[in-house]
Amino acid sequence: MTQSIQPKSRILIVGAGAIGSFYGALLVEKGADVSVVCRSEFEIVREHGLAIESSVFGDRIFRPAQVLRSAAEYQGGFPDYLIVSVKVVHGVDRSALIRDAVGPDTAIVLIENGVEIEAEIAAAFPANELISALAYIQVSRTGPGKIKHHALGNLTLGNYPSGAGARCRQLADLLQRDGIRCTVSEQVVTARWHKCVWNAVFNPISVLGGALDTATILAPPEGVAFVRGAMQEVIRVAAAAGHALPPAIIDQYIDGTRRAPPYKTSMALDYENGRAMEIEVILGNVVRAGRRENVAIPALEALYALLKMIEARG
Amino acid sequence: MTQSIQPKSRILIVGAGAIGSFYGALLVEKGADVSVVCRSEFEIVREHGLAIESSVFGDRIFRPAQVLRSAAEYQGGFPDYLIVSVKVVHGVDRSALIRDAVGPDTAIVLIENGVEIEAEIAAAFPANELISALAYIQVSRTGPGKIKHHALGNLTLGNYPSGAGARCRQLADLLQRDGIRCTVSEQVVTARWHKCVWNAVFNPISVLGGALDTATILAPPEGVAFVRGAMQEVIRVAAAAGHALPPAIIDQYIDGTRRAPPYKTSMALDYENGRAMEIEVILGNVVRAGRRENVAIPALEALYALLKMIEARG
Repeated sequence: MTQSIQPKSRILIVGAGAIGSFYGALLVEKGADVSVVCRSEFEIVREHGLAIESSVFGDRIFRPAQVLRSAAEYQGGFPDYLIVSVKVVHGVDRSALIRDAVGPDTAIVLIENGVEIEAEIAAAFPANELISALAYIQVSRTGPGKIKHHALGNLTLGNYPSGAGARCRQLADLLQRDGIRCTVSEQVVTARWHKCVWNAVFNPISVLGGALDTATILAPPEGVAFVRGAMQEVIRVAAAAGHALPPAIIDQYIDGTRRAPPYKTSMALDYENGRAMEIEVILGNVVRAGRRENVAIPALEALYALLKMIEARG
Repeated sequence: MTQSIQPKSRILIVGAGAIGSFYGALLVEKGADVSVVCRSEFEIVREHGLAIESSVFGDRIFRPAQVLRSAAEYQGGFPDYLIVSVKVVHGVDRSALIRDAVGPDTAIVLIENGVEIEAEIAAAFPANELISALAYIQVSRTGPGKIKHHALGNLTLGNYPSGAGARCRQLADLLQRDGIRCTVSEQVVTARWHKCVWNAVFNPISVLGGALDTATILAPPEGVAFVRGAMQEVIRVAAAAGHALPPAIIDQYIDGTRRAPPYKTSMALDYENGRAMEIEVILGNVVRAGRRENVAIPALEALYALLKMIEARG
């Protein structure tokens, strides 16, 4: 029996939702030893694995090496990579969820939406390498242990607050494959702000009025003007926070959204399905950054206030 | 047989919706000769009248003197008062709807929501007395020919653009009764802006997020702050348009709304029931006035853009 010279990368995914499951399945195919912590669906995932449906990559069952109720149950030492892909909503304490499985050499990887999501984890685990990753993907949970991949899948990742070390490149190699481009960025926080210019505007708008799709948002001239103004506010906040973005991205985003088939954002789908929305990481953190940096953000404040009212209705 | 010395006031109501029907019934009880133009429900109203349910004023059937499909059918000369209580939504041409029944001595009475709704009628009928009226009432249509009065009923009316002549006072006398205070105002346009400070803010917000009630809107601190900011914008627009309002009305409105039982605005009810919303008269006219007067109105622009997107969805 032969053995590989390099030992298998040991990866623990905390949060086996749509995104964590999708990338977990790819990592297994690249030979990694991938385990998951999934609380609510523990039984079904342990018994049946995670069923991933994708017309692009084929259907598959992802059977994690270990299926755990909590990070404390992780066996065989600490993982090389601990991927955090929990939805960041009210009441979720990411540090507490991962602490028991973070060893001295564990790189913590955040594959999450939003901006300014890293500082809290960096402060809780100052000695650990922190990798921030952005997923450009349309994937959704369709039932317990069931995930559907709709389109895309590219990733951008890099060290927080900047740089891109050897473990970033190793992880990128593990994730890369035909159809999935994994870009290593020395300035991942800037990339996060770039993505946020779209997300912090289209996600909230899509919820207001009851799950509007992208085409409806851009149908009236007032809609386009409002999107444009709100995006400008995000760009001003990003610049004030040290992440200058080219103004041309507004036109690129609007043109790209117009060309793409109409679709509903993740926040709109959460809203429609009565699930908690990622208001704070996608928009709240932008609003707080704007207030901190004294940038005028009336459109973003309006969106935030309206979402908080919807949230208050429960 | 005795005859009253003063002839009956002849009144034609165009738009026998909830508001028109409610006040029409009261006018009949005061001895007026009241007819209605109702297009969509002509048959049912001619046969059964308008059924008005009210725990405050009692249930009654309002049988108009004439039930008409159009103003042109009005018999017996011209009315003394032509009350316009159609919902002002896209595609409604009020001047065309009333023209055939406007005689040289007909006073045109607008009992309608919104601001800056009079100029168009004043321009179309420059020789006629124009009375602008605001209804503080919760009343809704519950079915064909069926109206439910929930609460309130007071009116403020006066001549447009200002003043309050004999016919305003006569109409106020006809409308006044126990439980209905009818205030004659020399500055009815200012009163309209006053009411609009509440309406242009709560109505749009209530629609966004799917028919929020007043309590939910004021639940999160962000909600209160946003309401306050948007109301300040309306007050600035009103001042620029020549209608100074006391800033204290913001606190009065917020406190009053908090004390009242939670309820849904007329626009929220229209939205929930798939009916056209009065976006333009309630908010669009404020936004256009703000642009015209060069007042910064970012919160109102945000609300307007979001409503136009919802409207685009249809």
